[in-house]
Amino acid sequence: MTETPTASPLFGTLAVIGPGLIGSSILRRAQRDGTIARELVACDIDPAVRQRVTELGIADRVEADPLRAAADADCVILCVPVGAIATVGAQILPVMKPGAILSEVGSTKQSIINAIAPALRPDIPFVPTHPMAGTEYSGPDAGFATLFDDRWCLLTPLEDTDPAATALVETMWHRLGARTRIMDPAHHDRVCAIVSHLPHLLAFTICGTADDLADETRSEVLDFAASGFRDFTRIAASDPVMWRDIFLNNREALLEMLARFMEDAQAMARAIRWGDEDFIVDRIERGRHIRRSLLENRQA
Amino acid sequence: MTETPTASPLFGTLAVIGPGLIGSSILRRAQRDGTIARELVACDIDPAVRQRVTELGIADRVEADPLRAAADADCVILCVPVGAIATVGAQILPVMKPGAILSEVGSTKQSIINAIAPALRPDIPFVPTHPMAGTEYSGPDAGFATLFDDRWCLLTPLEDTDPAATALVETMWHRLGARTRIMDPAHHDRVCAIVSHLPHLLAFTICGTADDLADETRSEVLDFAASGFRDFTRIAASDPVMWRDIFLNNREALLEMLARFMEDAQAMARAIRWGDEDFIVDRIERGRHIRRSLLENRQA
Repeated sequence: MTETPTASPLFGTLAVIGPGLIGSSILRRAQRDGTIARELVACDIDPAVRQRVTELGIADRVEADPLRAAADADCVILCVPVGAIATVGAQILPVMKPGAILSEVGSTKQSIINAIAPALRPDIPFVPTHPMAGTEYSGPDAGFATLFDDRWCLLTPLEDTDPAATALVETMWHRLGARTRIMDPAHHDRVCAIVSHLPHLLAFTICGTADDLADETRSEVLDFAASGFRDFTRIAASDPVMWRDIFLNNREALLEMLARFMEDAQAMARAIRWGDEDFIVDRIERGRHIRRSLLENRQA
Repeated sequence: MTETPTASPLFGTLAVIGPGLIGSSILRRAQRDGTIARELVACDIDPAVRQRVTELGIADRVEADPLRAAADADCVILCVPVGAIATVGAQILPVMKPGAILSEVGSTKQSIINAIAPALRPDIPFVPTHPMAGTEYSGPDAGFATLFDDRWCLLTPLEDTDPAATALVETMWHRLGARTRIMDPAHHDRVCAIVSHLPHLLAFTICGTADDLADETRSEVLDFAASGFRDFTRIAASDPVMWRDIFLNNREALLEMLARFMEDAQAMARAIRWGDEDFIVDRIERGRHIRRSLLENRQA
């Protein structure tokens, strides 16, 4: 399945709407390898972002108007915040060329699909994706060509999405460096709720809990954070608007996972209060077991 | 305050009871530098540990009986699990030399102090310490001479502990490589509850929550753990008996911090359910703020 670097471009024109961390990384990789599209178009409503993209020279054309960017594209990737994806999608769908592909890179899937569904066209295949890559930085300067190397990109096509379009988007992600998996959208949301959204929610929350402590204790939290707290804050440094949108857009799955977690934490609290040693050891052993599985899986 | 490497030893004989990760690291550093004691004694009730310490050659004398190890020591450091510290301390106190120092390295302080209090002698200064260093490994082979370099060691002397003895133990920890701070025992327990014990409890719990999911989702948790879950499991790999003892011995402070955390998590859940965007963003901003403080503090 390995393709030669001289593979011909998948698309004539690729439009990236929202060239932030993810979008600008797509552009950089596509420009570096030349195997994704013959023409790269970047579009952003923010003049400062357009100026920066122009200075970086990572697109052949920079547009202010999504309609102009989408009109002659063979593939449009919406890289705007989760909360704006359906709106921008509905705005550009009417002007897209028949047969062109619409894709997006949001971290949640079901709510985006539900919101954009009324605007979808039978002649425009819609291929939702979720590249599981990122850093704590954002904006066009934060991207880099190797961001997706060996990272997962999950694809959640709809039941009626043309399989050929899904295959084309999958090939694009392979060329961007990623491993891919196709998944049901609702299942995607549950998996991401437990592996990503709940850990982030807990990290943000414990930072707030620490911040509410008396001044003396709070300063010591910073001094002695190496003892575990620091690992939690590493993932708490992400973009607030992005995470607000993710939490609100994956509300159902996230609240279910949080409820399960809270039940388990309450059970642990009760075991500690009443000295139930076997229960406590059993819970810790399960943590170690999962840790070992991760090591065998080479993820840690 | 920097001392020359040729400083004369602080003690004639130092006895380490329980030469595991922490205890064997003390012995290794003391042996390497020669500035802590003229004679190093290791003591363990487990014949396999004694054999290994003998093979490693990190003590001048290896004893099976804590009474024999403690009888002629100028300083005894209890490096046994938190749940055994007061018991072993009460056992050896009657045979210790007048003026010798008793210390220990448990991760909680108030419950150890309460438990050992009836056995304390006015002529034996008791200096509880908590070296905040460790790895996920345990036993005499896990130790190394530089384990404490630039790590914190918190000292929680009692109100009537001889300040000269506290100063001597503090100097010992400087020579072991650590930074030190003196702290009230109850305050220590609250600080450690939020910076270390609560993060570990949450990490163990989320591993259990993930483990309870349907088989398909559980396998995907392992595949996609890089998205945040992995950072939580890094600290979930620690020794179950050690953590059981820590949780039970710091019960009050830990349950209070957990209760505060649960209230905060419930408030976040409610904000997500009702779409309170300002609340969510405020909580995330606080996480970022603490993260920035950590970076400025060079802890991250």
